[in-house]
Parts: sequence; structure tokens; C-alpha cells
Amino acid sequence: MTTTISAYAATSTTGPLSKTTIERREVGPHDVAFDIKFAGICHSDIHTVKGEWGKPNFPVVPGHEIAGVVTAVGSEVTKYKVGDHVGVGCFVDSCRECDNCHAGLQQYCTGTGMVGTYNAIDRDGTPTQGGYSTAIVVDENYVLRIPDSIPLDKAAPLLCAGITLFSPLRHWNAGPGKKVAVIGLGGLGHMGVKLAHAMGAHVTVLSQSLKKMEDGLRLGADEYYATADSDTFKKLAGKFDLIINTVSANLDMGLYLNLLAVDGTLVELGIPEHPMPIPVFPLASGRRSLSGSMIGGIPETQEMLDFCAEHDVTPEIEVIEASYINEAYERVLASDVRYRFVIDTSTI
Amino acid sequence: MTTTISAYAATSTTGPLSKTTIERREVGPHDVAFDIKFAGICHSDIHTVKGEWGKPNFPVVPGHEIAGVVTAVGSEVTKYKVGDHVGVGCFVDSCRECDNCHAGLQQYCTGTGMVGTYNAIDRDGTPTQGGYSTAIVVDENYVLRIPDSIPLDKAAPLLCAGITLFSPLRHWNAGPGKKVAVIGLGGLGHMGVKLAHAMGAHVTVLSQSLKKMEDGLRLGADEYYATADSDTFKKLAGKFDLIINTVSANLDMGLYLNLLAVDGTLVELGIPEHPMPIPVFPLASGRRSLSGSMIGGIPETQEMLDFCAEHDVTPEIEVIEASYINEAYERVLASDVRYRFVIDTSTI
Repeated sequence: MTTTISAYAATSTTGPLSKTTIERREVGPHDVAFDIKFAGICHSDIHTVKGEWGKPNFPVVPGHEIAGVVTAVGSEVTKYKVGDHVGVGCFVDSCRECDNCHAGLQQYCTGTGMVGTYNAIDRDGTPTQGGYSTAIVVDENYVLRIPDSIPLDKAAPLLCAGITLFSPLRHWNAGPGKKVAVIGLGGLGHMGVKLAHAMGAHVTVLSQSLKKMEDGLRLGADEYYATADSDTFKKLAGKFDLIINTVSANLDMGLYLNLLAVDGTLVELGIPEHPMPIPVFPLASGRRSLSGSMIGGIPETQEMLDFCAEHDVTPEIEVIEASYINEAYERVLASDVRYRFVIDTSTI
Repeated sequence: MTTTISAYAATSTTGPLSKTTIERREVGPHDVAFDIKFAGICHSDIHTVKGEWGKPNFPVVPGHEIAGVVTAVGSEVTKYKVGDHVGVGCFVDSCRECDNCHAGLQQYCTGTGMVGTYNAIDRDGTPTQGGYSTAIVVDENYVLRIPDSIPLDKAAPLLCAGITLFSPLRHWNAGPGKKVAVIGLGGLGHMGVKLAHAMGAHVTVLSQSLKKMEDGLRLGADEYYATADSDTFKKLAGKFDLIINTVSANLDMGLYLNLLAVDGTLVELGIPEHPMPIPVFPLASGRRSLSGSMIGGIPETQEMLDFCAEHDVTPEIEVIEASYINEAYERVLASDVRYRFVIDTSTI
């Protein structure tokens, strides 16, 4: 028997999100049911409901930064028990059979592809609905344990913004002796600064202006430069082992690639709508790489949560009531948030 | 006292190369002088003399695939003696002081930049002149030893075409268990096939048509596909750990990036005049990389020569007389060479 719960949903690409109810499935043998306490607002939510990533399957309940407390577990569940603090990120299932799923890289599943937490079709054929709601039921293998030391409101954004930065920083070996630059100090960028700093890397923020410089240094950046100043590109040429680009806007990539040392990598986290014009000379003249990265797999997401607990890394958040979601969307689009909105789902 | 020698030079971006004489410097304490026996014709030679890479400093004697026999050594030279088989590749000097030079990555020198073998300015302020000539004088640290088992005519193209492929194959770990694709079966591509095969990788050629398939398989490819056939891109999706692109033409890079497995790398060896349009989704959806690579440093070039001797890897060449250079250029531009022209410099 399904359970009816409250949620905020988009019903068109142009209208506001509004309160509604949705059904959650009965708790199966391998399922974990949990009350959602907080859900982060990710720019992807906005892209999706506005139809910028394809036609949405309305109604869409967004939210893939979900943190809560377990209320029920299926008969076969071994990993969680009632009362545990848990979370769910960008996907709730995958094929479980391809090489990438076996390797714990479910985000790169080549079977069915990962099953998105919302606006996707679940294994049982029903549409998935996300975290702007009061409860969810998810297979235990796609649920993360939130360490007790991380408050649930601050845990929520770790499930997408956190892992999106943690995974490339780990993969490309951010750590002591490494020079890491983060382009953009927004929801993603500020997590990049905190995580790279906690990993022991030398961290530089490349932001359009020096407006957020004080914040950036407080969050862990060692250096902070304005990219509107062309001297920045002369001064920093060849300096970085790793540059993480959190900005979706069209940047002059040749300028940024030239900031990499030999064998350096620039990782794109945004996915611009159109192909990016990439000059090959800066790649060839320093054996540099342009790479992409997408969230992280389940084991790595757990590793990230444990790392954040150990190093006391949490996002800067502004907790809002559900009725503020539409205004929050406007503010995200205006980059007017320091640095992540988190919905208190008890207000839905 | 300088020595006057015979050479073939370009004197304009439009006219043919013609016979002339040039001066070679006196043999300094650290110099090696050698008689050039063979010089390969590289597509770069043509780009340079036609002014496609900037205004040439005429007259230009091209040639950076140079093999010969030592005739004299300076008083301080320890590495070579008269009679040794030696070669010179794309550069004859570099700053010797930057991190990259210290690391043996002289091709990525960030001091003065590497000093090109021709159409550059040498340390003494004179223009460098390349291998379409009968003799050359080069600092011993920029001279390579050609193993006795490699005939000098076949050694010449290794100094550019060989190292250009060897370096990325080594850097990105081509070897047993790795699936490597080579785009294009020309002067560079055929060396890629031979070298990757010798390293133990599974080698696939991606060529526009199946015209050279028999050659490709004979040279060491395990598989051969026509890229004009769109089924190729469906069939090979996600298959390769490493793709080496030897083709300068504008390819639909999204198609090729999708052929990479998770964590795979596509290495660009050509440098197209304009930025390439790169779709980011194929990068992000598999943590894939687009990278560049440029020849190799002195230690790796020596390693390549020794590897080729050990594994009996040499290019397929067509030896020509100097008077045929201009016709050979036309044939290179028409891709009508299997697979490298080598000038017998005794005919200059």
C-alpha cells in the first residue's frame, strides 16, 4: 500500500512550484523509508523544471540533496535501522550489473543509466519524485549514512554539491603540495574551497570580482583573484595542477587552460548547452587535459560524508520555509545566495 | 669558423624549395657535428614553410627528423664520438633551467621555450636550419643515440613521428589489457599502430574508409573500422581506454569522446587552426578527458629509440632524392604516402 505525503511540485516550465501530494511506495524487503527533514536547492532542480534539460514529466517534485531520519526498513535490510540519520543524492537506483555499477561508479552506469531521484522512471515503472517532500522510500543500496556529527540541514547539500566537488578533487589527487584553483564561489565552488583545503591542497579562488574575497579566504582559500583583471591570467600562467570549473557560463577556455602546469587538468562540472570552443594549443603545449566529472558513486559519497564529519566540513546554508521556494529559485538564478538554500521540509 | 654546406630551402610561402647553401657553426666544446644521411618529411615542415603557423623567417631549411653519423665532437663532449649513429628531432636547445627542462620535458620548456630545429633563433642569435641539408652542429644534450640495429633511413622519422606517438602511449599507459584506438592511418597513425601493438595494447584503427585496412592489420592493428559508417560509433561506444587522434581535420568530437570508457582519454596530436567545439556531456558522463601531447623530451626520445630497437619497430618509408621534395610535399598534402617520405641527403 502506498503512502500519501505532502510535497512541492512544478507543474509547468513557467509556473511556480506549489503544494501538492504524492504517493510513496510500500516499503519493500530491501527498502529504507525515511522522513525527510531537509532538502537542498540545486541549480539542476531549476534547469529541470524549466525544461532546459529536456521536457519534464510533470508534476515534478525536485530535490536531490535529501537528509532525514529512518522510519521503517524492509525485512531484508541490513545496513540501516529506524532512527538512523540518512540521505539520498542524485540517484535512487542503477542497473547494478554493468562494470561501472560493480565498480561503485553508479553515476556512470552504462546499463539502464542511473535512475534520477526525480523526473526519472523507477525500476517499478513509476516516476521518481524528489526531496521537496516529507518522506521517501529508497533501496538501501542507494541510501547514505549521515554521520551524527553533521546536522541534517548542513548534510543535505553534501549529497550533491559536496560529492560533485569531492569526487574530482579525490580523483585528481588534490592534497598536500598540489595547487588547486576553483572557478566560481557559489554553491559548488564554496564546497570546493572547503574540501580542497581540508584535503591539504593550496587553494586559489578565481572569481569574476573580489566581491566575495573575504568569504573565500574565511572558507579556506589561500589566494583569491578576480578574472575580470587580465593581469590575473599573466600572473597565474602555468601555476595549477588542477582547476575545477563550477561556472556554467561561457568562459574563454584558452585563458584558463594556460593557467595549468604541465600535466594539469581542468575539470568541467557544469554542462553548458552548446559545445565549448576549445583551443588545442594550450592542451598540446603542456600535456594538459580538459575533463568532466559528474557527482560520485555510492561508496565515494559515503567516503565524502565520513570525510566531512572527520574534518568538520559543512556547507554555508540559508534554511528556508517551503513557501519561499519560488523566491529562492529567483535568488539562485541571480547568484544571490551564500551559499546554498536548504528547505526545512517540516514547513511543507 | 663556420662551414658552408648544401641544403634545400624555402624562400617564400608560395614558391618551391630549392637548392642553396647555409652555414653551420664551428664545433663548440659541447657540440656534436654530424653528417646528415637522411631527413624525414613531416607535415609540420609544410605548415611552416607555407606560413600556416606564422610568418616564416626565410630562407627556411625544414627537417626535424634527422639521422646521421658523427664527424666531430667538442672538447667537453662525453656522450658521443666520431662514427656514432645519432639523430636530432624537433628541437636543438631549451632554457635548461625551468622545472620542465630539469624534468627532461624540454618540449614543454617554460623558460625560453624549446628552440626549434628550424625557423627558430638559436642560443647564439642565429636562425636555426633543419635537416634538408648535409650536416648539422648540435649541443650533445640535444642529440639522440640511434641504436645500430635501426637503419638510418628508418630512424629519421622516429625523431618526430615516432616520439609524437610513443610519448602519449607511454604517458597514458598503453599496454596489455588496454584498448587503444588510433584515428587516421598516416605518417603518425601508422607509428601509433606499430608502437601500441609493440607495447602489448589491443589496437583499433579508426579510418575514414577501409581502403588501408589490409595495411593496418599487417602493421599490428587488431581491429579496423571505417568512421564513414555511423554504425562504427554505435558498435564501439564506451570501448576505449585511450584514443589518439592523428587527424587535423575537424571531426565531430562528441562522437569520438563517446567511444571512450569511463576515465578514458582522447589525445589530440594535431593542432587545428581554430578552437574545436567540444560538447561537455560526453566528458562529464564518463569522467573522460580530452588531452594534448607534443613530441617528447630528450630522455623519452632516447627511451623510444631503444624501445624501437628492442621491439624491431620502424616506420614504413619511401626514400626519395632531394629533387623530389616539392612533389613529395604535394603527395603529403594529398595523403598519398605510405607512410613517410625520407630524403636521402646525399642527393642534395
